[in-house]
Amino acid sequence: MVERWGKLAALVETMIPLHLQPESHVPLYIQLRDQIRALVHNGDLRPGERIPASRELATQLGVHRTTVANAYAELESEGLINGHVGRGTFIRGESAARKITPLPQAASLEGGLRWESLFADERGEEFLSRLTQGNARDAISFVLAKPCTQFFPIEELRKCSNTVWKREGTAILQMGPSDGYPSLKQALLTLLRSEGFQASDENLLITDGGQQALDLVCRAFLRPGDTVLLENPMYPGALAIFTGARARILAVPVKTESGPGTTPGVDVSAIEAVLMQNRVKMMVLTPDFHNPTGTTLPVAERRRLLEIAARFQVPIIEDHIYARLRSRGERVPSLKQLDRSNLVIQVDSFSKIAFPGLRVGWIMAPSNVIERLRLVKQSTDLHTGHLTQSILAEYLRRGHLKRHLERTRKAYSGRLAALEQALTHHMPPGTKWTRPEGGMCVWVELPPGFDSNELLIHTSERGVVFAPGRYFYFQNPQPNTLRLGYTGVDEREIARGIAILSDVLRNEMRKRQRGARRAEVTRVALV
Amino acid sequence: MVERWGKLAALVETMIPLHLQPESHVPLYIQLRDQIRALVHNGDLRPGERIPASRELATQLGVHRTTVANAYAELESEGLINGHVGRGTFIRGESAARKITPLPQAASLEGGLRWESLFADERGEEFLSRLTQGNARDAISFVLAKPCTQFFPIEELRKCSNTVWKREGTAILQMGPSDGYPSLKQALLTLLRSEGFQASDENLLITDGGQQALDLVCRAFLRPGDTVLLENPMYPGALAIFTGARARILAVPVKTESGPGTTPGVDVSAIEAVLMQNRVKMMVLTPDFHNPTGTTLPVAERRRLLEIAARFQVPIIEDHIYARLRSRGERVPSLKQLDRSNLVIQVDSFSKIAFPGLRVGWIMAPSNVIERLRLVKQSTDLHTGHLTQSILAEYLRRGHLKRHLERTRKAYSGRLAALEQALTHHMPPGTKWTRPEGGMCVWVELPPGFDSNELLIHTSERGVVFAPGRYFYFQNPQPNTLRLGYTGVDEREIARGIAILSDVLRNEMRKRQRGARRAEVTRVALV
Repeated sequence: MVERWGKLAALVETMIPLHLQPESHVPLYIQLRDQIRALVHNGDLRPGERIPASRELATQLGVHRTTVANAYAELESEGLINGHVGRGTFIRGESAARKITPLPQAASLEGGLRWESLFADERGEEFLSRLTQGNARDAISFVLAKPCTQFFPIEELRKCSNTVWKREGTAILQMGPSDGYPSLKQALLTLLRSEGFQASDENLLITDGGQQALDLVCRAFLRPGDTVLLENPMYPGALAIFTGARARILAVPVKTESGPGTTPGVDVSAIEAVLMQNRVKMMVLTPDFHNPTGTTLPVAERRRLLEIAARFQVPIIEDHIYARLRSRGERVPSLKQLDRSNLVIQVDSFSKIAFPGLRVGWIMAPSNVIERLRLVKQSTDLHTGHLTQSILAEYLRRGHLKRHLERTRKAYSGRLAALEQALTHHMPPGTKWTRPEGGMCVWVELPPGFDSNELLIHTSERGVVFAPGRYFYFQNPQPNTLRLGYTGVDEREIARGIAILSDVLRNEMRKRQRGARRAEVTRVALV
Repeated sequence: MVERWGKLAALVETMIPLHLQPESHVPLYIQLRDQIRALVHNGDLRPGERIPASRELATQLGVHRTTVANAYAELESEGLINGHVGRGTFIRGESAARKITPLPQAASLEGGLRWESLFADERGEEFLSRLTQGNARDAISFVLAKPCTQFFPIEELRKCSNTVWKREGTAILQMGPSDGYPSLKQALLTLLRSEGFQASDENLLITDGGQQALDLVCRAFLRPGDTVLLENPMYPGALAIFTGARARILAVPVKTESGPGTTPGVDVSAIEAVLMQNRVKMMVLTPDFHNPTGTTLPVAERRRLLEIAARFQVPIIEDHIYARLRSRGERVPSLKQLDRSNLVIQVDSFSKIAFPGLRVGWIMAPSNVIERLRLVKQSTDLHTGHLTQSILAEYLRRGHLKRHLERTRKAYSGRLAALEQALTHHMPPGTKWTRPEGGMCVWVELPPGFDSNELLIHTSERGVVFAPGRYFYFQNPQPNTLRLGYTGVDEREIARGIAILSDVLRNEMRKRQRGARRAEVTRVALV
């Protein structure tokens, strides 16, 4: 097939979704910088791609040329773009963006880590394999925050599968309702009620996993240019949805430290400040075991958040996909459970608690919202596949999920404890990390000035990999952060992996001290 | 759960996507009329819903009040809306729109047939059950164009299911690539190559059925206000996608008669005329066994269409989901196979040839298009569920699909022949129908002045139902048309059903003649 594609290729190229808000309090050049950065991070702009000259883009966007020039200058100083006199401005490769010596395999890295690499996508595996010189299988990987494959209940699911084929084969192969296969909805309602949720059939819509749940909410209620409030840092897959929808994004910091006068989780006072100054259409928050920081919003802060949401009448999309993975501490009621103003749409999924590959999730919301979402779901894909839905219904009915959750929670608790012990034991002073009570990851802050991308190159040479923090930021990326996904690594490997990571970090610290001393000596000699 | 929803309810209400194009050659009031009509037909506006006063809407849209008043007048004369002095303007119920005596159950029909009822959705079944006074199970239903459940290969699929659970359970439960489960892509490529398509892995993306395939193409390449060319009449699910995306829709007639100087299928000369006067972003066409008319575009017209597409550089989305259901006549090469300019994106699915409930389809396109679609698919739902993909791969590898197709094609050919024989034998003069060479439906044109919705009320009382033609139109609905889906009805029932349909039609014709004679007598008496 010849790959010349005339008009359509041009379409692809011109679909760069830039969307400036002149009325915003955020300066235009900052808006532009952040949007281009997001486009690079989520893969819409790729290394080597040419971006318009500043004069050209300024005309296109109807802004002053200095605005574009300022944004480009910022991006160039970050190493994200590169101007060549007479040739134009280009997106730099990730290795170049790191401003360090490129990896030997850098050329074939195809733009480095993109957000999909944070899933167990084939491309992610490929990336890891290159990074670890082909020894990915032996590497200790903290990259992913995903269920551990060793607990996958394959045999139980196979048996459920046999049962449903025999009992309801025709219904499985026939079309069905867009809001979900009735027996799965029934089984889920039983589960949700046992957890204290009050919901009935018209409050529930089955989706293709949590990703589609968020996407449907976005499509049903958000128009281009509408404002959405997100967390920073955050799950990159959500950012991809809202940038794709050309929403105006305002991101609020997530606090990773707790102590006197400060609480972990999203900064509720910052949310209040944003809502006072902006017309926000919805906010998307993960109060339980937030990805990537692992923080949980305390109940008092949840109440305050709901009070603010009610005052400004802004709906909250509550990402609930990690909430069942509590390892210790007391259960905190969800926003949905605390909500008295009917402002919470809860998004949930089987992907984190059990098996991501089956792609089944759900949305719990008031019935008029579900009805709107049902229509969007219908024109999106008619309905989620029946086979998987019917198997999951059977799996729930037989009580397997509860037992599976008990088993995995126990294992993950052990791993979390092992990780914390190893961090405490090995990490050099000046390194900080969050203390999650569950979920799938711990967030680490290296001493100021360290770059986790740089560290990754060194640790990967010694067979340890993790997710650098910058891929989770919408704005103000902190290069000294990283995420450790621990659920897929056993306790012995955790201990070994963190020992190596700490060793590499200490080495880098020593190099830096020597460098500083040398600079000092040089300066003294010069004086 | 309390159903008061403050702000979000208001959101739902204000999301009426009206999008007028002042630069179009189509008058504004016609654009407005057609868009509101489409919103009613696809369920965005429901019976009883209040629409803005003409003055209010005119201000909102920035048009003259007369424009809105004209559009409302047209819609009122069609019976779609209803103005009450002092109360406002409302969407009328479907029964009212029919301008005939309402059914006894009209109040509970909830707006009558909506597009989803044309699938075997639960709501569709409910609708049929009401229409047939609760005897839906015994009714002879020509409503749906869907595979016959009696041929569902349940046992074969159960066995494939067992094999894949045992062989690749972990891969099934883990995340995977957004472009599809590798073994399914491999098996599909083998099938496609055996059919004469030249494609490799990077030309293929797996989707959640044909509906998602179309939706992904729309999301990847169409922005609000862009123009898309569709067929009229057409598959209502496609219309739902493009109205939802707030595209500007231009619809081109599909010719249902063939004879000297005219060919069946979409009017290629009309396409040329539209492309000469409009910047069209893409066209969506179903050249094989078009739904709802059953027509197939002859090869010479396909060549002419491709020449025109190449001249104006407008990509064609070819809906190929019925193409494998040929009952007779010679195979016509697909647009994709004839395309020399790389302008065709082919959308395909297992839903029509085998089992709709599994929701698996695919897109075949040049690799740069697939790469763009892969990114959209990824932020939409990460990937299609693995279990179904792996079972289908096994099903294809074992050669089951080919045998299934042979079996169903044979059965459908018999049913098509029975339907044509029954129509020829029973139908009163003045009734016309298409002569499909395959697919799932025949399109019938009643004598002028007859309304198939009205006929449906009478036939349903006698246990026969079909899909009235008006639900397939984007504009200029022909109330005297109807679609007969024949694949789910056996030959004896077809004969009986058409005999009843014809009998009811003849009765109505007699009533009308008596009415005309009486009027004649009255006039004579008065003179």
